[in-house]
Amino acid sequence: MARNGKYLLRNLQPTTMNEVKLFLTDVDGCMTDGGMYYTESGDEFKKFCVYDGMGIVLLRKAGIPCGILTSENTAIGMKRAQKLGLEYIYTGVGRVVDGVKMTKLDAANQICKELGITLENVCFVGDDVNDLDLLQHAGIAACPANAVAVVKSIPGIIHLTKKGGDGAIRELCEMILAAKNNTTQH
Amino acid sequence: MARNGKYLLRNLQPTTMNEVKLFLTDVDGCMTDGGMYYTESGDEFKKFCVYDGMGIVLLRKAGIPCGILTSENTAIGMKRAQKLGLEYIYTGVGRVVDGVKMTKLDAANQICKELGITLENVCFVGDDVNDLDLLQHAGIAACPANAVAVVKSIPGIIHLTKKGGDGAIRELCEMILAAKNNTTQH
Amino acid sequence: MARNGKYLLRNLQPTTMNEVKLFLTDVDGCMTDGGMYYTESGDEFKKFCVYDGMGIVLLRKAGIPCGILTSENTAIGMKRAQKLGLEYIYTGVGRVVDGVKMTKLDAANQICKELGITLENVCFVGDDVNDLDLLQHAGIAACPANAVAVVKSIPGIIHLTKKGGDGAIRELCEMILAAKNNTTQH
Amino acid sequence: MARNGKYLLRNLQPTTMNEVKLFLTDVDGCMTDGGMYYTESGDEFKKFCVYDGMGIVLLRKAGIPCGILTSENTAIGMKRAQKLGLEYIYTGVGRVVDGVKMTKLDAANQICKELGITLENVCFVGDDVNDLDLLQHAGIAACPANAVAVVKSIPGIIHLTKKGGDGAIRELCEMILAAKNNTTQH
Repeated sequence: MARNGKYLLRNLQPTTMNEVKLFLTDVDGCMTDGGMYYTESGDEFKKFCVYDGMGIVLLRKAGIPCGILTSENTAIGMKRAQKLGLEYIYTGVGRVVDGVKMTKLDAANQICKELGITLENVCFVGDDVNDLDLLQHAGIAACPANAVAVVKSIPGIIHLTKKGGDGAIRELCEMILAAKNNTTQH
Repeated sequence: MARNGKYLLRNLQPTTMNEVKLFLTDVDGCMTDGGMYYTESGDEFKKFCVYDGMGIVLLRKAGIPCGILTSENTAIGMKRAQKLGLEYIYTGVGRVVDGVKMTKLDAANQICKELGITLENVCFVGDDVNDLDLLQHAGIAACPANAVAVVKSIPGIIHLTKKGGDGAIRELCEMILAAKNNTTQH
Repeated sequence: MARNGKYLLRNLQPTTMNEVKLFLTDVDGCMTDGGMYYTESGDEFKKFCVYDGMGIVLLRKAGIPCGILTSENTAIGMKRAQKLGLEYIYTGVGRVVDGVKMTKLDAANQICKELGITLENVCFVGDDVNDLDLLQHAGIAACPANAVAVVKSIPGIIHLTKKGGDGAIRELCEMILAAKNNTTQH
Repeated sequence: MARNGKYLLRNLQPTTMNEVKLFLTDVDGCMTDGGMYYTESGDEFKKFCVYDGMGIVLLRKAGIPCGILTSENTAIGMKRAQKLGLEYIYTGVGRVVDGVKMTKLDAANQICKELGITLENVCFVGDDVNDLDLLQHAGIAACPANAVAVVKSIPGIIHLTKKGGDGAIRELCEMILAAKNNTTQH
């Protein structure tokens, strides 16, 4: 499918949502409120959302594998991902590890290869400049209400009405599930 | 009382509120803001609300036993419940424990049996799909402003104006207390 | 001064603010956002506001002693109070300690006696039913935007536009400081 | 350049933004939401913002050194500053240390001397009374939406639309980067 076609796909037609075979999301600002909480004792934490958690549980029950792609190296995202049973967890994306730098697009390509699917089948949620490459190549791109301007202006990107850490991920999960259910019933 | 009558009861008549003999609520998103806070060191926390706490204290003083029903297995809800002196604390609801899976409806029925009352006398607050069964059978069903769409669309459910973790529980407590006081005064 | 006069005083005339000789406030919902944060490991925390802190520092520099009156027994309010150098810290107010129960009104009277002033000179901020007695007797009564209905309906109470934990205390401090400065300049 | 000229510079002309050679900011209320979170166990924490972090990373990549000036003595601001690689970290500003009291203006002057630039080249973000001196002398002064009234009323100060801890710093970084890019392209 041509790149031109990809942007058309982003107009949120039910048939498009139904083609999603992999759900990927950034962590900070998408699964969280973008807050980086630091404690005096040296600890750190993030705020996730119970509704997003249920959305991901429902997506996985519907047979769609899920994953997170984050540039952060903390154990926090990992812990939340494990609680939700996510199939793919990439941390430190965009950083140089063992002399190699993997972008979010690289990570998505690696997963697609493993699953035998293409980027056209990927739904990705991002909110900042380091998400741009994958947002421009994923079949469905979406961003929370709090995304930075350059992300919001990507042609055809889905503007979720909710903020990160306040149900944005769930909002998108419901769109995908509605499309899947609609297709199944016909 | 017929099922049909139950939905009529949900139209928030003072006489209905006055029949409440048990107050039950979900935890995440109802008694909290729906935030799942994870720390790097492996800890976890939730945000409750001081106004809800006072509301529950006032309900219990008025002779109405209170309880929480949550699918989570954390000690957090337990600690808050003990601080408020809640009579009933069910955690891990909806999960299989010792080969048995208890839903929120099952839990409410168990408490009703112990108290010698029926579901018609139960007021329950829920916000997500795993609350649907009890919300559809409780005498009074209510949801915070942040509940998911499928919960908000339950016929006759009370739409609280406040969000979970920001006074939604207190708002409902005040309705019940007002009805009780009104009845007592006449 | 007659009770009738007290309510007139609450109409927020600059001359009234200038008579304040003691600043007292509740903690949860007034100096905090009303959030009761519980951690899985058994810890607990509250959210205070940097603007309120500066407001109290400025009040004390202007010669007005400050204090907190809270029914909670945690060390959290104590720690914040010490950081700000508060002169009076009452915790566990309203609870029975050593067979004696002290209300917030009792506590305020005790401080007034020590300072040789009357309740007419007290400015008190409260937000819930356990603040009612002192709110009804203090020279100036104020409540944050998030106060419960019964508090907001006290005749002559000052309705602060900001919420607790988000600058409500500072808002009131500025009113008092403006009145003091205005008087000094003439 | 005359003081009169300085205020004109604050009218947010792209040429002005392009002259920024040092970016300084207060911490509480500017890089954070102004919340002072205290735990029962004696810990303390602050909420920073992932978007601000990326903004500072981008500024530094564009060759603009960055720093924080805070009156607080906690390790929290220090930790966040180190994570972002800030060149200048001043804590305890405004307090007397070893018999000497350094204001934020003093600190900025010290850095300017080291860099061989003047206050005209400094962009500073502040929100409260202890930021007034530097806000009145920096080439570009800005404040988050939550700044106190006396700060907002500084002639020519840039009123950021976002709140501290919710992207205010990023908003300003984008203005500077846009001006730099615009100049480079011509």
